Parts: sequence; structure tokens; C-alpha cells
Amino acid sequence: MTKKAVNNIVLIGSGNVATRLGIALTEAGYKISQVYSPRAKSAALLAKKLRAEAISDLKKLTKDGVVYIIAVKDDAIEGLAKKIKLKSAILVHTSGSVKMDVLKKSSHNHGVLYPLQTLSKDKKVDFRNIPLCIEASNKATELSLLYFAKSISGHVIKVNSSQRRTIHLAAVFACNFSNYLYSVSENILKKEKLSFDLLKPLIAETAAKVKTISPAKAQTGPAARGDKKTIEMHLKMLKDKKHKEIYKLMTKNIMKP
Amino acid sequence: MTKKAVNNIVLIGSGNVATRLGIALTEAGYKISQVYSPRAKSAALLAKKLRAEAISDLKKLTKDGVVYIIAVKDDAIEGLAKKIKLKSAILVHTSGSVKMDVLKKSSHNHGVLYPLQTLSKDKKVDFRNIPLCIEASNKATELSLLYFAKSISGHVIKVNSSQRRTIHLAAVFACNFSNYLYSVSENILKKEKLSFDLLKPLIAETAAKVKTISPAKAQTGPAARGDKKTIEMHLKMLKDKKHKEIYKLMTKNIMKP
Repeated sequence: MTKKAVNNIVLIGSGNVATRLGIALTEAGYKISQVYSPRAKSAALLAKKLRAEAISDLKKLTKDGVVYIIAVKDDAIEGLAKKIKLKSAILVHTSGSVKMDVLKKSSHNHGVLYPLQTLSKDKKVDFRNIPLCIEASNKATELSLLYFAKSISGHVIKVNSSQRRTIHLAAVFACNFSNYLYSVSENILKKEKLSFDLLKPLIAETAAKVKTISPAKAQTGPAARGDKKTIEMHLKMLKDKKHKEIYKLMTKNIMKP
Repeated sequence: MTKKAVNNIVLIGSGNVATRLGIALTEAGYKISQVYSPRAKSAALLAKKLRAEAISDLKKLTKDGVVYIIAVKDDAIEGLAKKIKLKSAILVHTSGSVKMDVLKKSSHNHGVLYPLQTLSKDKKVDFRNIPLCIEASNKATELSLLYFAKSISGHVIKVNSSQRRTIHLAAVFACNFSNYLYSVSENILKKEKLSFDLLKPLIAETAAKVKTISPAKAQTGPAARGDKKTIEMHLKMLKDKKHKEIYKLMTKNIMKP
């Protein structure tokens, strides 16, 4: 399967993942033929960017696509798949947690292409640095997806559904929950009219550290030192019950990992 | 106070902060005259790097120092300060949570120089990007410390003890607790023999995002979407009680911030 052979790709979805994936594929030389979204405006906006046809009715889905990519919210994937029937074309979704099997009635050749990154429509990203986890219903599809994925990312790995779910779960801790802690720290500073900018170099360095040191070894702070005096002072300072609860739990766990 | 006027700086401590601060000051043209540590080897190691005299007995402390910097663990600051009596020289500590007052009996001119960063002996860092929070016992000392701090950092701010404690508390959430979450994610992956490397681009991007978007607005993931199906699946997958407890608490808070 060469780039020419797959120069008919259909994007089902027009959100953050669809946008970033569509741009990466276009830049890698692929041709996106259609962009589907039930919201016509959203489909049109992305289709224009990718020089593709916008459709908002699944009946208009081309039969000539080689790879069909469902990049929509997790809970919408199964419903959409039910409305799609393909002959031999490859159908994939891009979710970290949805089973591959939800696509099996739509195409014999189905799979998953899960980009392990937080993507935003409006934020440029170098797709070559994004790990792409792939899974496929059969060896031929796997080969096709491997080739396809490697042409846009330098970090392609084969995983099964269970491993993909584990990776997604770990990502929730490392990304979603960390971001929530950032927002707590912003909140604590705001109440005292201090700027969140102060913490930005520290946040960047904390994240950069794990590139070279295991986070378990890099752990610092009052809990890691067993500094009970500071911990008690912090608990007194925290007025927000939620913040206090988080502080207590995290401290307890860091002290007895 | 020019650089020449303060070319006699004494470092009390030889750990991560003392090392990084000593190097930054030397590079900025200051002269470190002495490095004190009760552990002679440790004092000698840093003193050699800074071309200073190593001492491990406080009785040998020079009387000619202009600025004396106590950069030791929080719970050792007060004890050390009790053994130091200065005439007019400036005495500072570098802690985020210890009160400035613990230094008042040691020198009329005392203060705090708190670098808001996670520092390691062995990891180079550009001190100009590190926010330095300063506090001083009087206006003259404040001016001196402002000048002194600005000569090594581009981000110097005046704070009082209460604000400094707040900043330190916020940093515990943003840095120490985030790092703990990274270690949880590493643990989850390891159990399934998956590499932590997979998450590194995501961790970097999540931290980079807050440079331009408020973390409250950048929040994504199952909890932010109210995706109960995925949340339930994740809770079933988590076998470690501690991890489950964190997942529940963070999810509850993200859903009702």
C-alpha cells in the first residue's frame, strides 16, 4: 500500500483529533476526499482546510475510500459505526478506551489508530513526535495500518485493546489529573492575588525532569521528606475542603508509596 | 551595592539549592568565599567547584562576608541560625515555607531568597528563568536583596512571608503532586509491561499548554466530558486501592469544580 494507493481517505468527525490528523495526513501527501460531520458548518470548515468535500449526511459517504477514520467522541463511535457498511476498505477509530470490536460489523478490515496526545484544533503539533498506538482485525490490515501510521509518526506501536485501555488510563493520571492539579494551584494563587505565571517555569521543569529521571526517584517536597511541620501548616492554610482532601490523600500516598 | 561590594558571599549548605545558587552567583561574577557543611566531604566538593574555602565548623565562619545564605533543609534552618551572629551583614534563607523571623536574632539585616524551582545538584539550569521571591527585614536590606537577586534572575518579586507560604503550597500541588501522578502512571504501565516513554510527549505537552491556556480551560478527559462509561471501566481496571482512591477523588472534583 503506497501513498498513492491510499490517496482516498475519509474523515468522519471534525473536532480536535480529526483536524490535527487531517492536517498531518495532508502534509504527508495523502488526499482526504471527504469530511463528515452532522454539523454542516463544522464539516465545511475542516473540509476547506483539507481541500476535501464536506458532507453532513452519511448516505453521501463515498464508496471509493481506502481508509475511513472515525474521530469523534468515545460515546458516539458505536452509533456512527452502525450506520456505516464498507466492503474491503479499512475502518478505524481513534479512541483510547473504546473496543476495536465495535467496528466489526461495519468492515471486515477494521482497527484502531490512537494518537497518544492531547490535541487541539487551534494548536499546531508535530505529529512525528506523537506515539500512535495501532490495533487491527487481521494481519493484512495491521500491515496497512503500520505503513499508514509510520508515514505520519515516528513512534508507532502495536497494542491490543487491553494494552490500549491501560495506556489511556495511565494518560488520565499523567495528563488530565496533573492538569487538574495545575488548576488547583492557580486557584490557590488567585485567592491571594498572586500570578499563576510564577509557577510556569516550575511546571515545565517538573515535566521535563521525567524525560531523564524516573518520577518515583524525582519525588521531592514536604511529603517525600516526611516534613510533618510543613504538612500541618499547609493543611491549616487550605480553606477549600476539596483541596485539603487532595492534599491529605496525595501526602499519605507519597509518604507510603 | 555593586558586585564588587558583595564579592564576599558565604554559602551555608552544600545540597541542591546551595550548589545551583553557588554556581549561578559565581557565573554572575560574585565571589563565594566559604562553603559550610557539617559533612566535610560535601563542603569540600562544592567549595572546590566554586573556588571557595570549605569549612565544617561554624566557628570558622568568616566575619567579612557581605551576604550569608542558609540553603539547607527547612527543619535545619532555625537550629543553624541560632549558632550564627552577624553584625551588619545580610543573612538569608532560601526556604518557601520557613518564616523570615527565625533569622532575626542572628542579624538585624535578614531576609529570604526563595528560588521557585526544583533544583538538583547534577542538573544544569538557567537561573535567569527562575522566579526569585524575596523578603527583607528592612528597606535597606530589601534594596540590597533586590539588586542581588536581579543580577542572577530575570524574575524577581517581593513577597511577604504569608504570600511566600501560599506560593510554596501552590507549588506542592503543581510540582510534587503532579510528579506523584506521573509515578502512578509509570506504575500502571509497568504492571502491563508497557514503557513509560509512551507518555513522555503527552506529559510535556500537558505542561506546555498552561503557558498559553488557563489549566481550568484546558481540562480534558473522561471526567471533564462526564463520560461515565469510561470512568466506570477505569475504576474496574484499577486494582491498586491507592490508585483507585486518587482516581475517584480527582474525577469527583473535576466533575464538580
